[in-house]
Amino acid sequence: MNAASHIFTDLTIATCDGDSPYGLIERAALVVEDGQVAWVGPEADLPARCAGFASTGFGGRLMTPGLVDCHTHIVFGGNRAREFEMRLQGASYEEVARAGGGIVSTVGATRTAMPETLLEEALTRVDALIAEGVTTLEIKSGYGLDRETELTMLRVARRIAQLRPVTVRTSFLGAHAIPAEFAGRADAYIDEICIPTLREAHAEGLVDAVDGFCEGIAFLPDQIARVFDVARELGLPVKLHAEQLSNLGGARLAASYGALSADHVEYLDATGVAAMAQAGTVAVLLPGAFYTLRETQMPPVDLFREHGVPMALATDCNPGSSPLASLLLTMNMGCTLFRMTPEEALRGVTAHGARALGLPDRGTIAPGMRADLAVWSVAHPAELAYRIGFNPLHSRIFGGTLCNT
Amino acid sequence: MNAASHIFTDLTIATCDGDSPYGLIERAALVVEDGQVAWVGPEADLPARCAGFASTGFGGRLMTPGLVDCHTHIVFGGNRAREFEMRLQGASYEEVARAGGGIVSTVGATRTAMPETLLEEALTRVDALIAEGVTTLEIKSGYGLDRETELTMLRVARRIAQLRPVTVRTSFLGAHAIPAEFAGRADAYIDEICIPTLREAHAEGLVDAVDGFCEGIAFLPDQIARVFDVARELGLPVKLHAEQLSNLGGARLAASYGALSADHVEYLDATGVAAMAQAGTVAVLLPGAFYTLRETQMPPVDLFREHGVPMALATDCNPGSSPLASLLLTMNMGCTLFRMTPEEALRGVTAHGARALGLPDRGTIAPGMRADLAVWSVAHPAELAYRIGFNPLHSRIFGGTLCNT
Ligand SMILES: [Zn+2]
Ligand SMILES: [Zn+2]
Repeated sequence: MNAASHIFTDLTIATCDGDSPYGLIERAALVVEDGQVAWVGPEADLPARCAGFASTGFGGRLMTPGLVDCHTHIVFGGNRAREFEMRLQGASYEEVARAGGGIVSTVGATRTAMPETLLEEALTRVDALIAEGVTTLEIKSGYGLDRETELTMLRVARRIAQLRPVTVRTSFLGAHAIPAEFAGRADAYIDEICIPTLREAHAEGLVDAVDGFCEGIAFLPDQIARVFDVARELGLPVKLHAEQLSNLGGARLAASYGALSADHVEYLDATGVAAMAQAGTVAVLLPGAFYTLRETQMPPVDLFREHGVPMALATDCNPGSSPLASLLLTMNMGCTLFRMTPEEALRGVTAHGARALGLPDRGTIAPGMRADLAVWSVAHPAELAYRIGFNPLHSRIFGGTLCNT
Repeated sequence: MNAASHIFTDLTIATCDGDSPYGLIERAALVVEDGQVAWVGPEADLPARCAGFASTGFGGRLMTPGLVDCHTHIVFGGNRAREFEMRLQGASYEEVARAGGGIVSTVGATRTAMPETLLEEALTRVDALIAEGVTTLEIKSGYGLDRETELTMLRVARRIAQLRPVTVRTSFLGAHAIPAEFAGRADAYIDEICIPTLREAHAEGLVDAVDGFCEGIAFLPDQIARVFDVARELGLPVKLHAEQLSNLGGARLAASYGALSADHVEYLDATGVAAMAQAGTVAVLLPGAFYTLRETQMPPVDLFREHGVPMALATDCNPGSSPLASLLLTMNMGCTLFRMTPEEALRGVTAHGARALGLPDRGTIAPGMRADLAVWSVAHPAELAYRIGFNPLHSRIFGGTLCNT
């Protein structure tokens, strides 16, 4: 008998696999071997060879894949509470800017923070995600906008994966904003800072994917394309913040590079949706930013359904437009604000979240998948999206190892 | 030296007392004696007589009054996740009703639940509130709508106060909805069930206040008035769910009875606001229900400011229109959805929440107040409303006793 083998029983399992509702299996059991799911199915059908395995019962609770938060800016310096307050006190955009608000303030705070401080503060947020069953998360750079700080952010992201049992996927987001010292010279920033830093970060093994922010207030499609060309040369997948505030054709551009995902996409049109469908690009929806910015333009959820574009949901955890550290609340917002179904919300933070990160070994519960799992004190998976600000997590399982919370 | 005396030091204290922003005291200390605040002020001014007291330092963290959730329906049977899902799958109102949805389903589940089950399930939600610094909460009846179950709900509420260190204030809400067996006979329900049950519950010591739901789909002002007349006779304060979906003059009615609060009040007009101001009635705003129901009519926040009507914020924790168990998230929603300032949000869950419950001994930090306190790992009180789905609570203090979380 393999010491690394274990049976989990007395479960309802939402496998998020296949087309049946939630891929649900009642009175189910799951066998782990060597950190992977070896078998899953009705308890009555447990293979005879597993009879001697150690087992843990869960009292009829619900098991899901471990959650995947596929879009975060969780490493940053400072916070923007003062700016939040000024706006609510009626300050104008100019007054906030004069007081040093906006992304500029986060870039400043990130550049001056000690790496240990960035790490320590990010861990408080990462731990909040882990407490809700997150087992994989993505972390972007993009608040450095200079060589040294972009590298620091990515090193901090890598360090988080060493200190916590989660898997971290990094995205290089040098093309996030134009730093003050390059005001009016976006092309120079791309060529002199962004691309050389991407090459250096990649050489250091810090980059799993390349991201950008395609918007009038950030970078135009041809500037993003130059960064994506380098990503392609380096063999790195791409993704893009696209169509959040307007439609510049960013998702179409991303799809033409076979992007993993196009993110936000509230202003996406049918052509863009079709291009994403063709390229297999995931739509990553970020209701926390929609909520915080009080947007009214909803992402084209019906078009995504029609064209079979998978929808993921993520926190977008960042200090400005989405100071959100709860993926469960994100699921509720996906339903309440974007009219997704609870099943779409769950697949959005499991199967489709994993796909948005290019990770085929997780996000569903099936033989051969990594045994990253979450067990919840609920009877039905719809409850995960239904409640607001309530965490029913019972247990987490990372690579087959049970961590009771 | 008194064993029940203690100094808390190395704090920023948001007293929520007086008119200065947050009533903030920097480099502050607080002295507790016999469960009450004996002294609060700058550390440098600590009275000499306290020199020998035991002391605890908090590393510069923020202290606020313990939070008050002044409007909850936290005791109920079942949940409405299936109804949530059906609606998002496109079911019509009639289909949901035919499937047993709506408040009827909660009444049914509450009537058939064992009291121990009601208690156990309510405690999971109460514990979520406590984990965020709540030290006082209100709990309503109103899912029984028959004699026995209304009494059971109130007994469960009283039991919660025995099992947890929180203070619980009960509200009798027999006039919440018309039960199926009285369909079309609202007056008979009021006279035959609601009022006799109120008298009985009061005789058993179960009622701290009397509430009602004044709306076309519930009870009309003259029916509410009959219940309030009995409350007055019994010497019980009143409050009212008013002007949530339309304007029936409920808040004006409540004010005429000197109500503690009028709650929801999205559709309130200037006359109603003036009546509340005159009566000293608190406006309890419930953004969780506004968010869940996707309402667009905002409460008249500017009118409340103009007329000096104190605004409280509460979760409205209930299984249908607000399955919300986070008062911090409620603060964020108060700012993001209702454009309250972070300071208004904090006073709304402290000073004004306490006032909405008629509790003059809490909600601010001042000599003589009950030492229900919360300590947060944040630098500035605006951070409490700014973050979303993140709990920075460090310590709770109930009646002067420190409970590290
Ligand atoms: Zn982003
Ligand atoms: Zn209510």
